[in-house]
Amino acid sequence: MESLGKHAILNGELIAATEALLPVWEKEFLYGFGVYESLKVIASKAIYLNEHIERLFFSAAGLALRHPFKVEEICEWLSALIERDSIEEATVRILLMGGIESRLFITAEPLLTYPESFYSSGVKGAIYHGERFLPRYKSCSLLLNYIALRHASSQGAFEALLVDRHGLVLEGTRTNIFACEGEKIFTAPKTVVLEGVTRHKIIRGIEELGYELIYEAPLLDELLAGRFSELFISSTSMGAMPISQVEGYKFEAPFRVTHSLHSLVREWERLTLP
Amino acid sequence: MESLGKHAILNGELIAATEALLPVWEKEFLYGFGVYESLKVIASKAIYLNEHIERLFFSAAGLALRHPFKVEEICEWLSALIERDSIEEATVRILLMGGIESRLFITAEPLLTYPESFYSSGVKGAIYHGERFLPRYKSCSLLLNYIALRHASSQGAFEALLVDRHGLVLEGTRTNIFACEGEKIFTAPKTVVLEGVTRHKIIRGIEELGYELIYEAPLLDELLAGRFSELFISSTSMGAMPISQVEGYKFEAPFRVTHSLHSLVREWERLTLP
Repeated sequence: MESLGKHAILNGELIAATEALLPVWEKEFLYGFGVYESLKVIASKAIYLNEHIERLFFSAAGLALRHPFKVEEICEWLSALIERDSIEEATVRILLMGGIESRLFITAEPLLTYPESFYSSGVKGAIYHGERFLPRYKSCSLLLNYIALRHASSQGAFEALLVDRHGLVLEGTRTNIFACEGEKIFTAPKTVVLEGVTRHKIIRGIEELGYELIYEAPLLDELLAGRFSELFISSTSMGAMPISQVEGYKFEAPFRVTHSLHSLVREWERLTLP
Repeated sequence: MESLGKHAILNGELIAATEALLPVWEKEFLYGFGVYESLKVIASKAIYLNEHIERLFFSAAGLALRHPFKVEEICEWLSALIERDSIEEATVRILLMGGIESRLFITAEPLLTYPESFYSSGVKGAIYHGERFLPRYKSCSLLLNYIALRHASSQGAFEALLVDRHGLVLEGTRTNIFACEGEKIFTAPKTVVLEGVTRHKIIRGIEELGYELIYEAPLLDELLAGRFSELFISSTSMGAMPISQVEGYKFEAPFRVTHSLHSLVREWERLTLP
């Protein structure tokens, strides 16, 4: 709470951040009938804002969560918040809760970043068997993600890899997943996972750098048997981050493919800045 | 909101009901890391309060949601709320949210009741294919329930019957399910569903009335093929309520078994009153 910005937005109105509250007696609150986005502000500019708002609306439509909000007004509201609190860098969350009267909150927190060693040495992954409900949509149905990530943390891992009933490694708790077999890169088709904004950039990068993209989720068994040379996770805050270890199996640095894609994705971000 | 009581409880403190709020920027809020109970107050007495609090703690333990609360103090807090607002009848919700600082809310709403015709004529059920996450625990991971119930309502149905990957009818969105084949009554084993407080009473009633209880969830295919003579749902607010129709298949009144169990469960409730 101390790390929260001074102000927030509720349905276009500037409010004190401490007033970004929801009543616990509301059905939509209890049932988690909401969708959200996390995005970065760098040099006072929201990165890929339109894509994030489009995905917010895609998630809302997927849940048939009706709301009156327009892309342009959300952009304006965020601009107003950035200006009011003189935000240079931040991780911004847009939360859209459904209900008879839908509500859109915008809040800002310090920019989430990771140590350089996470990229050079990779991070540990843990396995969690479970399937997200309506995985294409970034909804507030996140208890599985919470418990899977806590399970990972308890093992000293940075991310949990969610494995479905078929043994497929679909995605992480807040990341997408890619597995490299030489110049071939495997990832789950977008019909069964959350299509991350950064995932989308990485897919463009894969084409740009001449790797071969295959829309198949890696099998856990094959992964642990050594089929893949690199495994990495992607998200808005992480870019592309290499996994160094899953259960007993180790991936060795340097993570050449992962780093090439990470650099490209970060470079594209910089190009959008003023 | 107009139907909410005047006051609520937060961690033992009496607050205005309108102040029962949670900050949207908190991780535990976003991730739905909470458990809850709904119970009835009749004649100013909370029905089966100890069993509800025990299940609340069972759910919390299932999620490894740590909290400092004790059964006795929650009982005292609810008594204080009942006295302060002179509550005679109400549906009370106890919500326990996890986090570094866990929070327990008690709120009261008008007692939820149903027309007598729902019992005499039965209510329509709809089918929803989906599996709850950690189904034994009454957690805030409820988006599936919300969407399934909305799907049912859009078909003019009162409840959605959740069918798992094996075609088993496990439970409703806020109810347990029982299917009668003559004197045999089938219901899912407690390892795969939420063990309702009323489900527990009905199971006692089945033994008391000499029916045969079989811990097997009914198969949807068999249900639609006419294997079962009655189908009913149970919950704290409903007691035992007959289903009159699922998809095209109709169950004919009188719902003798359902009514006998409903009467017994309601009678037991009355016996607990002062």
